[in-house]
Amino acid sequence: MPKIAVYPGSFDPITNGHLDVIERAAHIFDRVIVAVAHNPEKTPMFTPQVRVELVRAAVRDLKNVDVEEFAGLLVKYARERGATALVRGLRAVSDFEFEFQMALMNRKLDATVETIFLMPKDEYTFISSRVVREIAGLGGDVSAFVPPAVQYALKQKRAAG
Amino acid sequence: MPKIAVYPGSFDPITNGHLDVIERAAHIFDRVIVAVAHNPEKTPMFTPQVRVELVRAAVRDLKNVDVEEFAGLLVKYARERGATALVRGLRAVSDFEFEFQMALMNRKLDATVETIFLMPKDEYTFISSRVVREIAGLGGDVSAFVPPAVQYALKQKRAAG
Amino acid sequence: MPKIAVYPGSFDPITNGHLDVIERAAHIFDRVIVAVAHNPEKTPMFTPQVRVELVRAAVRDLKNVDVEEFAGLLVKYARERGATALVRGLRAVSDFEFEFQMALMNRKLDATVETIFLMPKDEYTFISSRVVREIAGLGGDVSAFVPPAVQYALKQKRAAG
Amino acid sequence: MPKIAVYPGSFDPITNGHLDVIERAAHIFDRVIVAVAHNPEKTPMFTPQVRVELVRAAVRDLKNVDVEEFAGLLVKYARERGATALVRGLRAVSDFEFEFQMALMNRKLDATVETIFLMPKDEYTFISSRVVREIAGLGGDVSAFVPPAVQYALKQKRAAG
Amino acid sequence: MPKIAVYPGSFDPITNGHLDVIERAAHIFDRVIVAVAHNPEKTPMFTPQVRVELVRAAVRDLKNVDVEEFAGLLVKYARERGATALVRGLRAVSDFEFEFQMALMNRKLDATVETIFLMPKDEYTFISSRVVREIAGLGGDVSAFVPPAVQYALKQKRAAG
Amino acid sequence: MPKIAVYPGSFDPITNGHLDVIERAAHIFDRVIVAVAHNPEKTPMFTPQVRVELVRAAVRDLKNVDVEEFAGLLVKYARERGATALVRGLRAVSDFEFEFQMALMNRKLDATVETIFLMPKDEYTFISSRVVREIAGLGGDVSAFVPPAVQYALKQKRAAG
Repeated sequence: MPKIAVYPGSFDPITNGHLDVIERAAHIFDRVIVAVAHNPEKTPMFTPQVRVELVRAAVRDLKNVDVEEFAGLLVKYARERGATALVRGLRAVSDFEFEFQMALMNRKLDATVETIFLMPKDEYTFISSRVVREIAGLGGDVSAFVPPAVQYALKQKRAAG
Repeated sequence: MPKIAVYPGSFDPITNGHLDVIERAAHIFDRVIVAVAHNPEKTPMFTPQVRVELVRAAVRDLKNVDVEEFAGLLVKYARERGATALVRGLRAVSDFEFEFQMALMNRKLDATVETIFLMPKDEYTFISSRVVREIAGLGGDVSAFVPPAVQYALKQKRAAG
Repeated sequence: MPKIAVYPGSFDPITNGHLDVIERAAHIFDRVIVAVAHNPEKTPMFTPQVRVELVRAAVRDLKNVDVEEFAGLLVKYARERGATALVRGLRAVSDFEFEFQMALMNRKLDATVETIFLMPKDEYTFISSRVVREIAGLGGDVSAFVPPAVQYALKQKRAAG
Repeated sequence: MPKIAVYPGSFDPITNGHLDVIERAAHIFDRVIVAVAHNPEKTPMFTPQVRVELVRAAVRDLKNVDVEEFAGLLVKYARERGATALVRGLRAVSDFEFEFQMALMNRKLDATVETIFLMPKDEYTFISSRVVREIAGLGGDVSAFVPPAVQYALKQKRAAG
Repeated sequence: MPKIAVYPGSFDPITNGHLDVIERAAHIFDRVIVAVAHNPEKTPMFTPQVRVELVRAAVRDLKNVDVEEFAGLLVKYARERGATALVRGLRAVSDFEFEFQMALMNRKLDATVETIFLMPKDEYTFISSRVVREIAGLGGDVSAFVPPAVQYALKQKRAAG
Repeated sequence: MPKIAVYPGSFDPITNGHLDVIERAAHIFDRVIVAVAHNPEKTPMFTPQVRVELVRAAVRDLKNVDVEEFAGLLVKYARERGATALVRGLRAVSDFEFEFQMALMNRKLDATVETIFLMPKDEYTFISSRVVREIAGLGGDVSAFVPPAVQYALKQKRAAG
């Protein structure tokens, strides 16, 4: 039976840190589904459709990685996809506590889906979607932090005002 | 002189973790006042009146526990009630730092009221009102995390849209 | 060549903790520029002009300290001012992680500006602008936490409603 | 029934931070027993007898505080003394995690004894017995960190070589 | 190609927390090798041979788990065994930082071996080999924290010692 | 008046992380004294003399950096050298808390010496003298973590040991 993992997130937008975690997960699991969360109560920078497209552009060369939009309860979604693992990247202590609480909660909701934590490259430790949005919004150069398509999308966003 | 403690919070809604802390405080102090904060600048899920009612339903069997709505400066309120202690639950490192800052600030404002920290049961470590609201909002089962009346109130809320 | 440092922040409003860090920086560097951030996307309690004025009143006696409003990318601003260092105060673990991420990001954007961290007096550990705003808003006494001009401005604000 | 608390520790030697916690506990509980741990596998600076004496000298004016040497399992000792609470001081995040693990373990061993955490004065945050021993050993002045009898004992220790 | 993971540690002795991590790893990987570290510079409670035996007794029913003694450089050992992953359990923030440093170091030494982190059951959060040794040494009941064979070995140790 | 800073440590042995901090300090201060601690109660891998030599070899090209052996109270030593600052590198949360306590203690002992914290390059985050000693002791390649002279000294040590 193939080992399937779900990597959930907002990806608003995807960063090189996310991409690094996806590549690591793709080496461990037979198939990785990147699940782009659609949360109707938040106002993201990019629509779910654009966020999915930007992730797809970034993972094009990874043959065992799929990208989907997702809404609702994460563990239910993972079970429907036949996944036995949720993948999360850990960068810092503050990440760790929040991720831990979510993982314990998800385990309580469905004990058959295991959360596993991976560590992105140390040079990506400080990158987050929020910081990327801020710097791009101020006209800073984010080419070292995001894939090319994201860099382009951020520039267009800024030009559009 | 009876030892009175105040346990302040938003309780939006009360969880089994809160209830566990209340029970522990009720063993240490002669009287415990659960103070449901009314913060006009925030938009809670439940009105202060409903939050008070839900706490009352949960602590009905605890003879030395009272529930009140409260607004304004916490240390002033505690002094008016004759309390010598503020009770707070500690679950995680991030809790710890914020709680520590609030406790130091409160001590500076009124040195006669001592903050004491209690530890909820380990199985309640990951429960927070925010996570409960999120999961209930997505239709997840929260029966293991909240008292029965809260479960009912969350279902009604969801049905109402 | 004189050693110039920039101390950036919102200062909404300046607290005794900020002031303590400014004094320490003024002993280490030949010139310190307090950079009051103007972030158009946030709604501060005080306008940038008032925040600058309140910092100026507080640092009046420090001969090598200047105060300026600033917007845009911090490292770009620092370079334009001839600064070789950014100064940040560290109070707690949660500070530490966020500050670390910002410092690494700033280093990536401009390796010639070094971030240095100073430690405010232990009695100022628990003071933050947010807590000061909350307590003043509830009518609490903040005279021990902020310079006199800030105390006055907070009272006026409250009276104005 | 009087409320009795046990405050366990090595107290090698007692510091002003410990003393501050004892005073706070003495306000909350009817009786506080300071339990000086005798651990045959460690080599303390002072013998258990001297450590007990130094604590006694420091708490002489606190009428509801007793000092005892103790060995063996802490929860068993607490139960024998009729205590319903263990008191611990919390200063920092690293304290917090270790204390939390010990408290959970003690609760598992005996659920009738509750651990409560108190916060020493902020100016005592950085004081620990280890740091006091180091500084005294190097001839530094520790008069601001320990009670007078401890200061005297440390000087004698140093003179004796 | 089968996915092989190495779970390294001292296991002095194995606890229910370790066992829980092994079971989780055995669901994710095709084969798990528990590597009992033989560190000549430390003095463990149990010899490497006994530690290996106690782990073997505990994992007897897990068909895809092997147990071996190991010495030397971990990444070299993992590569020799054909493993593509190192498994580590994460319980607390202090774990997290140390584990992170080791994982980064191992990645620098051999980028082909990925470290993945799993979370033991919340009720095992507070269990460590050190605490188990201490409590058993004081005659406390550790039956809830370790497998039966370990409980027996600890009793014999105490009777002999 | 020239700005002098002291950078204290064991340097057993100096790593590329230490060296990175020294270089950053040398840009901020007019003169940096690397103070190699001689602690008679600890048994280092290298003698103080060898540790001083290895630091000297590493900083040979930094014109405003001196290296000295030092024993006793750090703040007393710093004052004797005319230093107004102590420099420390911060890598992780656990560092942070310990360093904070030491800095507060040193400030209490001598308020005229300020501790400033610098952040080494992110790729050096995981390097510590202890880990370097361990890996070198197991025959691992540490060439990426230490200066050449240290690599040579570690090899000789291993051949001799």
